[in-house]
Amino acid sequence: VVILGAGFGGLAAARALRHARVEVLVIDRHNYHLFQPLLYQVATAGLAPNDIAQPIRSILGRQDNAAVMLAKVTGVDVARKQVLLDDRRVAYDDLVIATGARHAYFGHDDWEAHAHGLKRIDDATFLRRKILLAFERAEAATDPASRRRWLNFVVVGGGPTGVEMAGAIMELARRALAADFRAIDPREARVTLVQSAPRILPSFAPGLSRAAHRRLEVMGVDIRLSSRVTGCDALGVSIDAARIESGTIVWAAGVMASPAGQWLGAETDAVGRVRVRPDLSVPGAANVFVIGDTALTQDRRGRALPGLAPVAKQQGLFVARLLARRARNPKARGRFAYRGVGLWATIGRRSAVIQAGPVRLSGPIAWGLWSLAHIYLLIGFRNKVAVAASWAWNYVTFQRGARLITGDDSNPAPRDAM
Amino acid sequence: VVILGAGFGGLAAARALRHARVEVLVIDRHNYHLFQPLLYQVATAGLAPNDIAQPIRSILGRQDNAAVMLAKVTGVDVARKQVLLDDRRVAYDDLVIATGARHAYFGHDDWEAHAHGLKRIDDATFLRRKILLAFERAEAATDPASRRRWLNFVVVGGGPTGVEMAGAIMELARRALAADFRAIDPREARVTLVQSAPRILPSFAPGLSRAAHRRLEVMGVDIRLSSRVTGCDALGVSIDAARIESGTIVWAAGVMASPAGQWLGAETDAVGRVRVRPDLSVPGAANVFVIGDTALTQDRRGRALPGLAPVAKQQGLFVARLLARRARNPKARGRFAYRGVGLWATIGRRSAVIQAGPVRLSGPIAWGLWSLAHIYLLIGFRNKVAVAASWAWNYVTFQRGARLITGDDSNPAPRDAM
Repeated sequence: VVILGAGFGGLAAARALRHARVEVLVIDRHNYHLFQPLLYQVATAGLAPNDIAQPIRSILGRQDNAAVMLAKVTGVDVARKQVLLDDRRVAYDDLVIATGARHAYFGHDDWEAHAHGLKRIDDATFLRRKILLAFERAEAATDPASRRRWLNFVVVGGGPTGVEMAGAIMELARRALAADFRAIDPREARVTLVQSAPRILPSFAPGLSRAAHRRLEVMGVDIRLSSRVTGCDALGVSIDAARIESGTIVWAAGVMASPAGQWLGAETDAVGRVRVRPDLSVPGAANVFVIGDTALTQDRRGRALPGLAPVAKQQGLFVARLLARRARNPKARGRFAYRGVGLWATIGRRSAVIQAGPVRLSGPIAWGLWSLAHIYLLIGFRNKVAVAASWAWNYVTFQRGARLITGDDSNPAPRDAM
Repeated sequence: VVILGAGFGGLAAARALRHARVEVLVIDRHNYHLFQPLLYQVATAGLAPNDIAQPIRSILGRQDNAAVMLAKVTGVDVARKQVLLDDRRVAYDDLVIATGARHAYFGHDDWEAHAHGLKRIDDATFLRRKILLAFERAEAATDPASRRRWLNFVVVGGGPTGVEMAGAIMELARRALAADFRAIDPREARVTLVQSAPRILPSFAPGLSRAAHRRLEVMGVDIRLSSRVTGCDALGVSIDAARIESGTIVWAAGVMASPAGQWLGAETDAVGRVRVRPDLSVPGAANVFVIGDTALTQDRRGRALPGLAPVAKQQGLFVARLLARRARNPKARGRFAYRGVGLWATIGRRSAVIQAGPVRLSGPIAWGLWSLAHIYLLIGFRNKVAVAASWAWNYVTFQRGARLITGDDSNPAPRDAM
C-alpha cells in the first residue's frame, strides 16, 4: 500500500494499517506532519513551527510495516500501477491519495504576490515575517499615509482561518507589541475582514456567526460582509467599489485540491476535487483511493463534506480498514459515512465558537474546550507540552514567544500540492 | 548615541546606558538578538530558532531612552556624523559599531556554495535542512557510493564551533535518528573534523585539547590534524593529498569582520578588524567606537582578544560607562582591560571542557556547569525555560525537538555583516 501525503488522512490510514498484513510506504514532500489547525498561530508569532510539526519518521518509527519516503509526486501511472516521482517510479498494489489542498485565487494568480495564503510552514513563517515587518515599516515611515498603510491589515475570507487570523493579528497589535514601539502606537493598527457571503463562518449556525461577529467587532476588527475582492496589489485591496490601502493582505478565501484528478485522469469538480465512489475509490481504478481535501464526498443529505481534519481522518481510517479486510477477503466492500464531530473557530485569546450536534457554545468556556481539544489532538508528547506552555505563557504575559523575522523577501517556493 | 548591531556588545552598551542622560538608538538588520553560542544546536535540530533569539524591541521595551530601528547599514559618513542606511541617513553624536563578523573562506568564495557557515538563524535552519536531507538522500539512494557520500559529514575547523558541530551531528546520527530509517542505518554515518593546527581547540590548554580529542574519538569522530582544506565541491572535500567524498560540509574555519573598517576608512588587520585606541575609539574619530568581533584589541601580553561573547559584553559595558561619564565631563578618558572569564566547548550530549583561570575541567561535570551557565546567560525568562526543558527532554529521550526540513534549496540571503 502506497500512501501519498502525511496529513491527517494519510497518517490516519498509515497508522490504522499497523496490524494489517501489508507493507505501507508513505510518500510526502515534507519530512513532517503538520497540525494545520494551529498554523495561524505560527503566522502570528504565538507558536514556533516545531511546536505544531512532528517528523513523519518518528511518528511511524516503531511501526515495522511502514516506511517513509521524502519525495515530490509528479503523477500516477494507473495502467502500470506506479507512482511517478521526480527521479524514479514506485510500484503500488493499492494507492491512497491524501495530498490535500492549496490556496487558490479564483483565476487571479497575479494576486498571489500580494495576498499570501496559509497552508504550509513556509507560508506561516513568510506571513509572520510580513506582519512583523509591517509594524517595523510603519515605525520607520516618514509620511503619515504610508504609516497608515503599513498599519492596515486585510484578511480575505470569513471562514475559520480568516476569523482566526483577524483576531490573532488584532491581539498581536493591541497586546504583544503595544509597548515596544516609539514612533507608532501599534494599537492604531486596523484589521479588515472581507467576506463574500452575507455572514462570517457560514458553515456554522447563524447564532454562532453572530456571536463571532460581535466578538470580533468588540476587539476592533472591521468586518465587510457580502463584499468581493476585485483586485490586490502592493498598495492595497479593491473591494467592489471601495478601496483599502494596506501593506499586508492575508488570503484565506479559496482553496484548490491537489492535482490528483489530473494524475488519474479522473473527473473533478470546479476546485479540483476527485469524484469518488461510496468506498472512496476512483471510478475505473478500484485499487486507488482518494481521501481528505482532495476528494469530493457527500453527507447523507448530498451536501459536500468540508475540508476538515476529522473528515480526512475518518476517511483514512475507513480506507485502512477496507484494505485490511481485503487482505483477507479480496471481495470485501464498504461505504464511507461521516460522523460529524463538530465545528470550531477561535476568536482571539479568550473566545471561541463551537458547534457539535445540538450543542452551541461561544465565549471563554468554548475557548477552554477548544484549547484542551487541540492539545489532546496534537501528535507527540513534547509538542503537547510545548503548546500548552506557550499558551499559558501568552495568556499570562500577553507576550508572543516566536516574534522572529527570518528568511528573505522572496515568496516561499511555489505553491504545490504536497 | 547610535549603536550599530544588537549582538552581545551592542546590547550590553545599550542596556548600560539606561540611566545615562543620553538618547540611545539601536540599529540592526534583524529584529532579534541572537544567542550565538547555542546556534549549533539549532543547526542540529536540538533547539528551535526562537528558543535562542529574543526580539530587540522587547529587550529594550521598558528602557525609555532607547529606540530600535530595523535597517541595514551601508556606510558611515564620519565628517557629517551620519550613519548611511539603505534609504536614509541617521545623525549621531557618538557612534558604537558592534556589527560582528561573518564566516570567510580565505579567498575561496566559490566554496561557499558547498561549505556552509554558521553565523545567523538562517544559516542554522539552512544547515539543519542540509543535514537532515542528507539522511533522507542516503535512504533513497540506489547505489552504495552515493549512499556512503550522503552519510559522510565533514566539519572544517577545530575551534569550539567545529568541535561542537562534529559532536552534535554524531549524536544526531547515532541516537536521535537511529530507529527512524529502514534502508540505511544512520549509525553508519561518519563525521570528519578537519583542523589545520596540530591540535583541536588550540586556544585551550593542551590537556583540555587532548581530553576533547579523546572524547570525540570515542564518539566516533574522525579527526584530521595539521590538515588544510584545498578544495570544496558538491561531491566532497580535498584535504592536502587526501579526498573525502561528502554531501554535507560545515564551515567553521574562518571569520571576517564586518566591513566597518571600509565604512570608516580605518586601518584593519588581515581579517578586517579595526585597530582601535585603548579606549576602543577609532584613531581620528574620538566619538566613534568599535567593539566586539569587529575590533582588534589586545590583552596585557599583546595577544589579540578572541571573538567571544564576554569580550564583546565587557567592551560594550566599558564604552557605555565612558559615554555616561562624558555626558557629565567631556574630558573623561578610559582604557579597556579584559577580565578573562574562561573558555568552554561542549562535546556531545554529556561532556564539555572548561578553562577558567587556573581551573581545568572536562567531562560530565563541566557539561553540567556549561548548561547552567548558558541557561543563566540566555536573555528572557521564556527562553531560559524553553531551553532547559528541551535539554532535559533530549537528555532523557535522545529525541530532537526541531527536526524540520523547511525552506527551499537555495542558499539563504548573501552573507552580510549585520
